Amino acid sequence: MNRHCAIIGVGHTKFGRIEEKNLMDLLCEASLEAIKDSNTDTKDFDSVYVGCMSANAFNNISGIASALVDKISLLPAAADHIKNGPASGGSAVKAGFQAIMSGMSDLVLIVGGEKMTHIAKPGFITSNVATITHPEAERIHGVSLPAMAGLLTRTYLNEYNAKLSWLSDIAIKNHNNGVLNPLAHFQKSIEDIMKHAIKKGKGNWNDIQEFLKDDKVNPIIADPLRLYHICPISDGSAALILCNADIAKEFCDTPILISGIGQATDTHIIYEREDITTLKALKICSQQAYKMAGISPEDIDVAELHDAFEILEAVESEDIGFFPKGEGAKAAHEGLTEIGGKIPINPSGGLKARGHPLGATGVAQIVELYWQLQGEAGKRQIDGAEKGISCNFGGFGNNILSFILERMDRI
Amino acid sequence: MNRHCAIIGVGHTKFGRIEEKNLMDLLCEASLEAIKDSNTDTKDFDSVYVGCMSANAFNNISGIASALVDKISLLPAAADHIKNGPASGGSAVKAGFQAIMSGMSDLVLIVGGEKMTHIAKPGFITSNVATITHPEAERIHGVSLPAMAGLLTRTYLNEYNAKLSWLSDIAIKNHNNGVLNPLAHFQKSIEDIMKHAIKKGKGNWNDIQEFLKDDKVNPIIADPLRLYHICPISDGSAALILCNADIAKEFCDTPILISGIGQATDTHIIYEREDITTLKALKICSQQAYKMAGISPEDIDVAELHDAFEILEAVESEDIGFFPKGEGAKAAHEGLTEIGGKIPINPSGGLKARGHPLGATGVAQIVELYWQLQGEAGKRQIDGAEKGISCNFGGFGNNILSFILERMDRI
Repeated sequence: MNRHCAIIGVGHTKFGRIEEKNLMDLLCEASLEAIKDSNTDTKDFDSVYVGCMSANAFNNISGIASALVDKISLLPAAADHIKNGPASGGSAVKAGFQAIMSGMSDLVLIVGGEKMTHIAKPGFITSNVATITHPEAERIHGVSLPAMAGLLTRTYLNEYNAKLSWLSDIAIKNHNNGVLNPLAHFQKSIEDIMKHAIKKGKGNWNDIQEFLKDDKVNPIIADPLRLYHICPISDGSAALILCNADIAKEFCDTPILISGIGQATDTHIIYEREDITTLKALKICSQQAYKMAGISPEDIDVAELHDAFEILEAVESEDIGFFPKGEGAKAAHEGLTEIGGKIPINPSGGLKARGHPLGATGVAQIVELYWQLQGEAGKRQIDGAEKGISCNFGGFGNNILSFILERMDRI
Repeated sequence: MNRHCAIIGVGHTKFGRIEEKNLMDLLCEASLEAIKDSNTDTKDFDSVYVGCMSANAFNNISGIASALVDKISLLPAAADHIKNGPASGGSAVKAGFQAIMSGMSDLVLIVGGEKMTHIAKPGFITSNVATITHPEAERIHGVSLPAMAGLLTRTYLNEYNAKLSWLSDIAIKNHNNGVLNPLAHFQKSIEDIMKHAIKKGKGNWNDIQEFLKDDKVNPIIADPLRLYHICPISDGSAALILCNADIAKEFCDTPILISGIGQATDTHIIYEREDITTLKALKICSQQAYKMAGISPEDIDVAELHDAFEILEAVESEDIGFFPKGEGAKAAHEGLTEIGGKIPINPSGGLKARGHPLGATGVAQIVELYWQLQGEAGKRQIDGAEKGISCNFGGFGNNILSFILERMDRI
C-alpha cells in the first residue's frame, strides 16, 4: 500500500448526562468541531461514516448518517451507518480508513455518538446491550454484560492470585485522569467523592479502598463487581477528519498517521473459548496493527483501552502486549499505567471516567491519542508521546479493533 | 487504482414468508451457498460485512456480523454490520469493495438479509421503516414511506401526463419476471391471480387493468397507490464473495468485475428538494459509477432497480439515464423494459415480485446481475448480457447506491 491515511482534525463533545441535546445535535456538534479544527470546507467531503449502536432503540430514528450529511451541509457526500455494538465507533473509523486507502475518498468525516441517559425504563439499556450476547446459550438464561464481566473477574482473581482492590486501583486512576479532562463525564477523584460522602454524614472511612468496600455507597452490581468497577451510561459524540496523507499538510501542520489497524472476531459463546481470561480477538487484532505499523508494544507511549469494566483494562493491557498474562491488574496497582508511569493507560479517564456513549467511544479513544501525539492534551499530557494504540471492544470480546497512531513527522 | 474487485460466487435463499428459519439461519444459508459457489475455503476470509436494516427491532439481536462469522466458522475474520435502511445491502457491498481496493483484504464475504414476516403487530414494520424519515418535518405528521410514494406518484402523473395504469404495467412485468425466478417471493403472474380470483367467484373482470382498479382485490394503500403498486414484506438473504481480481481466476472461470460504484445523499426532508420527481442522489451516484467504469447508460444490457413502489422503477429508469425525464412509465408501458426489450429492468422480478427483505435487496440485485452476466439466469436470461447496473434506494431517495458489473473477459 503506497497510500496512507492521516487524521487532520478532531471534535469531541462533553460526555455525560447531556439533557438539552438529542443524538443528532451531539453528532452535529462533534462533526462541525472536527471540520473547523481541520480547516476543511464542507464541500470537500467524499464520504461520512457514523458509528452508533442503538439509534433505533434509544432514539427512535434511523438513517442517521444521511440525515447528518444533510444537516451539516455535506451534500451529496456518501453516508453510511456502521453498527458494531460498543465497537461501532472503531468500526466506523476502519470503514473510513478503507475508503481513503481504496482511493475512493480523499476526505472523510467519521463521527461516533450515542444518547442514552434520557431512557427512563429501568434495565432497558442493559437489556438492549445484552442483544449482542448469544440468544440461546447466554441471554435466555439472564446473562447480561455486567454478569459476564463478573464471571471474568472472579476467574481472573482466582487464576492469577490477583486482588479485587487492584481493579479498584484502576478505577481510582481513571477517575484521577478524568479530573484532568474537561470533557469527561466524571471529573472528580474517588477520594474527593469519599470526602464529600463523609462530610454529608454518609459514613466514615479511613481510606479509599475501605470506602469502595461499602455496600451502601458502592453496591455490588454483578458479584464481585461493584458500581465503581463499571463505566457509567453517558451521552456524547466524537469525530475525526481522515485524509489522504499526501494532501494532509494542506490542512494541518502535524497530521497524525493511522499506521496500523486490526480487527478480529472470537467465538460468540464465551463458554466456547479456551480461556475466558484471554481476549484472543485482541491478541490477533493488535498483532495485525503492530505488524502493519512495523512496531512492537515496547514502542507505544500511550494507550486508550476499553474499560467498560475495570477488569477489561487489566486483561487488555496483557493481551495488547504490555504485561505478561495475569500481571495487568498488579501493574495497575503498582502505578505502571498512571500518567508518568511505564505505559500510561487511559489518560482521558477511559470509559470509567470519560464516560461510555457506546458508539462514541471508539472514536473518542482516537481523538485522545490524537491530542496526546499533538501535545495538546493539557494537564493530562504524556511527555513526548509519539506512538499510541487503542482497543475498542465489541460484543463481550468477540469483536475487537485496535488502532495505532503515529506522528507523521516522526516516522 | 490498479487493483480491481471481482465477484467470484453468490448465494441467494428463497425470498418470501420463510416461517421455519430465523434471521441468522437465513444469513448462514446464503453465506455458505456463496462460499461453496466460489470454491473458497472458510479459512481464507479476511472480513465479512452484513447489511441488515433492523435486526434489533425485528429480531431482538445485534452483533449479527460477528455472530455470523463464528457460526459459519470464518474466525477470526473481521466482522461489521452496515445499516443504511433499505440500502443496507448496497452499503455492505460498497464497504467490502473498499476493503478489497484498500489492500486490507483479499477475500470478503458480503451478506444482506432481513426476517420480517413473523412480526404480528400491525403497522410495526411500516412504523419502524418510517424512522428513516425526518422526525419533525415528516414523521410527526404521520408520513410513512407509502405516503411519500403516493405523493410522488400523484405529482409524477400530473407533471408528465402519465397514467396510473402504466405503473400497473410495471407491476405486471415484474410479476411476469417473478414467474421465471424460482427464488422469487411471488411466482405468479397478475393475470393468473386474476383468473384464480374469477374462478373463486370473487368477481369478473375483462382484463388485468380492470382487475387492478377493483377496490376489493386491490385496495388503495396510499392514494393513488394500490396494493399491487407496492412490494411485499419478505424474509430472505443474499450473499456475494468479493475477491482481489488478480487472484479471482483461481476460484472462478468467469469472475464478474465491479467496475463502477457510486453513492450519494440528498436532502432528508423531501420538501426541500427542487423537484420531487427527480432523484438527484441517483443522478449523481449513477454518474459516479458510469465514470468509474468508463461507460454510459447506452452500454448497459440489464438493470436491477429498486421498485419498492412501482413509481420508483419509472423514476429511476429516467435518472439512471435510460429514458428522458417523464418517459420512464411510458417506456415500461410500451414494453421497452421487458426481457427482450430495449433495456430489460428487473428480470429477477424486482422488489415487487422477488420480494424485499430490506437488507437483502441491495445484495440480491447484484446476485441477479452476476447470474445474468454469467449466462446462468435460466428462463429469465437476457441474451448476451455483458454489462449490468443496479440502484439500491435508502431513506426516501436521500441515500442511493449504484453498482456497475461487467464480465472480466469482455473488458
